[in-house]
Amino acid sequence: MSWNKDKTDCCETTHQDSHYSPGYYWLGNNTLKVPLVLHKENRQRLVSLFLSNHKETIQKNSYILLEGGKSVTLYDSDHEPLFKQEKYFFWAFGSDMPDCYGLISLDDALNPISTLVIPKLPAEYATWLGEIHSCEYWKSIFLVDNVIFVEDMTEFLVKNNATTLYTLSGVNADSGNSLTTPKFEGIEKFNVDTKLLYNDFSECRVYKSPKELEVLRYACDASVSAHKAVMKNIKIGMKEYESEAEFLHHSYKHWGCRNVGYTCICAANANSSVLHYGHAGEPNASTIRDGSMCLYDMGAEYHGYSSDITCSFPANGKFTEKQKIVYNAVLDASRSVIAAMKPGVNWVDMHKLAERRILSHLLTAGLLQAANGVDELIENKIGSIFFPHGLGHFLGLCTHDVGGYGGDAVPKVNSLRTTRTLKAGMFITVEPGCYFIDHLLNGAIADPVKSKYLNIPVIETYRKFGGVRIEDDVFVTENGCENYSSDLPRTVEEIESFMKK
Amino acid sequence: MSWNKDKTDCCETTHQDSHYSPGYYWLGNNTLKVPLVLHKENRQRLVSLFLSNHKETIQKNSYILLEGGKSVTLYDSDHEPLFKQEKYFFWAFGSDMPDCYGLISLDDALNPISTLVIPKLPAEYATWLGEIHSCEYWKSIFLVDNVIFVEDMTEFLVKNNATTLYTLSGVNADSGNSLTTPKFEGIEKFNVDTKLLYNDFSECRVYKSPKELEVLRYACDASVSAHKAVMKNIKIGMKEYESEAEFLHHSYKHWGCRNVGYTCICAANANSSVLHYGHAGEPNASTIRDGSMCLYDMGAEYHGYSSDITCSFPANGKFTEKQKIVYNAVLDASRSVIAAMKPGVNWVDMHKLAERRILSHLLTAGLLQAANGVDELIENKIGSIFFPHGLGHFLGLCTHDVGGYGGDAVPKVNSLRTTRTLKAGMFITVEPGCYFIDHLLNGAIADPVKSKYLNIPVIETYRKFGGVRIEDDVFVTENGCENYSSDLPRTVEEIESFMKK
Repeated sequence: MSWNKDKTDCCETTHQDSHYSPGYYWLGNNTLKVPLVLHKENRQRLVSLFLSNHKETIQKNSYILLEGGKSVTLYDSDHEPLFKQEKYFFWAFGSDMPDCYGLISLDDALNPISTLVIPKLPAEYATWLGEIHSCEYWKSIFLVDNVIFVEDMTEFLVKNNATTLYTLSGVNADSGNSLTTPKFEGIEKFNVDTKLLYNDFSECRVYKSPKELEVLRYACDASVSAHKAVMKNIKIGMKEYESEAEFLHHSYKHWGCRNVGYTCICAANANSSVLHYGHAGEPNASTIRDGSMCLYDMGAEYHGYSSDITCSFPANGKFTEKQKIVYNAVLDASRSVIAAMKPGVNWVDMHKLAERRILSHLLTAGLLQAANGVDELIENKIGSIFFPHGLGHFLGLCTHDVGGYGGDAVPKVNSLRTTRTLKAGMFITVEPGCYFIDHLLNGAIADPVKSKYLNIPVIETYRKFGGVRIEDDVFVTENGCENYSSDLPRTVEEIESFMKK
Repeated sequence: MSWNKDKTDCCETTHQDSHYSPGYYWLGNNTLKVPLVLHKENRQRLVSLFLSNHKETIQKNSYILLEGGKSVTLYDSDHEPLFKQEKYFFWAFGSDMPDCYGLISLDDALNPISTLVIPKLPAEYATWLGEIHSCEYWKSIFLVDNVIFVEDMTEFLVKNNATTLYTLSGVNADSGNSLTTPKFEGIEKFNVDTKLLYNDFSECRVYKSPKELEVLRYACDASVSAHKAVMKNIKIGMKEYESEAEFLHHSYKHWGCRNVGYTCICAANANSSVLHYGHAGEPNASTIRDGSMCLYDMGAEYHGYSSDITCSFPANGKFTEKQKIVYNAVLDASRSVIAAMKPGVNWVDMHKLAERRILSHLLTAGLLQAANGVDELIENKIGSIFFPHGLGHFLGLCTHDVGGYGGDAVPKVNSLRTTRTLKAGMFITVEPGCYFIDHLLNGAIADPVKSKYLNIPVIETYRKFGGVRIEDDVFVTENGCENYSSDLPRTVEEIESFMKK
C-alpha cells in the first residue's frame, strides 16, 4: 500500500484489515483465513440431524433459539475479562459479539433460514469501543439470512408465526453445569422446548467437518510450533512461567492465537506429577532444575477451536535411565493406541491398552512384580496408581468437548471422559501418562492387596521424579486415524537430538 | 544448588521456590519479593479507621467478615479461567486461593486478630491440583492469627461469642454492581450488618501504604520496560496484536507479571481514536501503517496491583507536523497537571486545566477559532469533542480503583471517575487525550453553536488521524506528587531519539 505525502498523517482504516471481512475471519500475515461458511454448514448439519430425529414432533414455524454469552464484569468492579463466546452459539454462528441470540428456522433442512440477533448499541459505543456496524454489514460477514436487533426479536418471531422455540438445556457431565435457558422480553408468547435439542446438538458437535478440521489443524500446528520453541529455549535455572510466557508469545505473535484453550501447565521437577498444575494456586513458579522432567501441557486456540498438546522432556535435554524407562512406557502406550484407533474401536479398550503397555514396562523395569504378569496387575487395579486419569477426551471448541457421555457411552468408568466407540469424524486427545504421586503411592503401599505388587524399594527411588504425559490430538478417519500433532519430536532420540541443536 | 549423581532424576521440589514462602510472595529471579505483612498492615489500617469512625456502634465480639472469590467455570463447560481474587478480600489477606473467607476481630484496633478461612480440600486435589497444605502452613505464609476450615467457621464464631458480622455491600459507581453478601451455613446465628463497612473500607483502599507503593512501583516499572520493548520492536506492516504479544511476553518473562490489569489496547491508524479498543470485538487486528499514530494503553499487574500506562507515538518513529501539534497539546496538558498536583488541589480543576491546555494548542494551530479565546471554547463545551473522557482515576488493586466517588466527591461530572480533592497517599492516573472521533466531530459540526468554533476545513484534514493519550501513574505526596512512569520517553524529541536507536 502506498501513501502520498499529503496523506501520511491521516491513515484510513478500513475493515479489510479487521479480523472480519465478508465471509471470513482472518488475522492477516500467515494466519489461517477461516471461511465463515463453516458455521453455515454447521447449522445445516444441525437442522438436518434434528429434523431427521424428530420428524413427527417438530411442527411448521419452529425455531432453534440460541443465546450467546453475555459480557460480564469481575465481582463488583467494571473490569471486563476478555470476552469468550458461549460455544454452542459460536459453533452455529461464528460470532464473538456478546449479548446476541441466534434463530434457526426448522422449516427447511437443506437451507435453514438463519437470523443473528444483535444488541442495538448506544451512540457512545463508537467513542469507547469502536465503529457501530449496520445489520447489513454483519449479514455479509456471517453469511446469515437476517440480522435483527434483540428488541425486534419478538416481533420478528410473531410475524413469522413462530410456534415452538427449541433451546439448549442439559447437564455438561464434565462440569455438572447446565446452560441457562434463554430469556428475552416476549418469550412467553411462544412454546419453549428445553428438552429435545441438547442431545442432538452436542452429538452434532462431536463430528468435525472438513472446515472445522482445517481450523483444528491450524491450532495444532500453532501449538506444535510453540512447544518446539519452548523446548529449544529452555534453560536450567529458568522459572517454569518463562516457558509459559514463551508459548503464549509464540502462538500469539506468529500464529494469531490470542487465547489458549486452558491454563498452561508448565510443570518441572516433581510438579510434573500434578495433573492440572499451573492454576492460580500453583502458578508455574518453580525453578527448573537440572536432571528434572518437564511436563508441558499447552494448547493454542484459533477462531474458538482449541488444541491440547503435552510434551514431556528432560529439562537438560538428555534422558537419564529412569526417565527413559518411564518415558518409553508412556510413548509405547501412546503409539500403541494411535496404531489401533479406527472406527468401531471402543475407547475403554484403548484406555486399557494404554494401561497395559505402561504396566508392562514398569514390570519389566522392576518397579512392579506379579507372578502371573500384567493381567494380574490389571485385575488388581495397579494401573490407576500411576495413570490416574482417562486416556483422552473429545476436543473442539471446548478443550473437554461435548458429547463424550452421549452415543453408546456407558456410565462413567473411573476418570474416563468418554467410553464411546470411535466413529469417523471424531477428534480426540490421546494422552497416556505415568506419574509418581505421593499420596497415591502412599495409599497403595498402605493397601495390603496392592502393596504386594509394588517393588517398594525401587519405587521409592522414583519419589519426586514427577511424571510423564504424552498428548496428541487425533482425528478418526474412515479407516484409521490421523495424528494432528505428529510433527513433534517424540522418541527419546528425536527429543535429545532436537534439544541438542 | 548442587546435585549428586544418584539424585539426578529425583528432583526435590521444595516450597522455597513456590510463589509463597513464610511471609512472602515472590516469583524469583529479579522479581519483587513482596512482604505479606503488607496485608497485615492493611487490616490494622482498616480496623483502626472503622473503629474510630463507629466507636459508639461497634460492640464487643464483632467481626469484619469478607468473602473471597469463588472458582468459576465458563458457561456449562468445565473450563476454569485463571482465577482472580476478589480485591477487597485480597487487600486484607493477600491470598489468591478461591473459596475462602476472612474474619477480622474488632476488639483490638492495634492488633486485630485475623482468621483466614479456607476450604477443606478433598484428597484427589493432590492428584489434580497440587499438595494440600496444613492450616499451620498457610498461617505462616499469610501472617494471620488463625487458619480454619470453612465448615468450622460457625463453631469458631460461636465459641468466640461473635455478635455482629460487618460485611461489604455497596454499589461500585464505575460498574453499577455490588458485591454479593457473604453466605455460609450458620450465618443466621449472627447479626449481619451490610451497611457500615463499605465506605470505610473503600476509603481505606484509596490511601496506599509504603509497602503497597513498592508493589505499584514495581508494576509500573514492569510496564515501562515492556512499553519500551514494544516501541523498540515496532515495524510498519506488523499487526497490532504482535505488539500486545510483545508486551505480555516481556512483562511476564522478565517481570513475573502473569496478568495485565485490563485488556491491552494496541491501537494504530484511526483505531487510536477508539478509547477502549482491543476488546474481543476489536481485537488489535489491524495492520500498522506507515504514517499512523499508535496509542498503546497497557498495564502489567503484580501480586494483584495494577499499573495503567499509555504511550502514544508515530508508528514509523518520526512525528509529522500534525502529529506534533496534537501530541504536544496532550503532553502540555499532562505536564501541566503533574506540575500542579498536590494535596488540596481538586481533581475537577485538574481536568479543566488539561482541557484548557489542549484547547489552547488546537486554537493556536488553527483547528479551532474563538474571538474571545480559550475561555469561550470552554464555556461552549468544545473540550469534550476532542477529550471525551475523564482526566484519570484511582489505581491500585483495581484498574479503576475504588473510592473515586467517596470523600468530598460531588455527583458525577461528565465522565470523570473522581471529583475529589487530592490528599497525600492517593495514587491516580493522569491521562489527558485528544482524539478525532467521527461521530463526535459529526455531532459538533451539525450543532449550530459548537460548529462556529470549529475550523471545519482544517479539522477535516485530521479525520482518520486517530488520537493521542498520554497516561502516567502518579502518587500524591505530602508536598506535590511523584510520577511512577517517568522513565518513559515522553517528549517528541525523546520519542524520536528512542525509536531511532
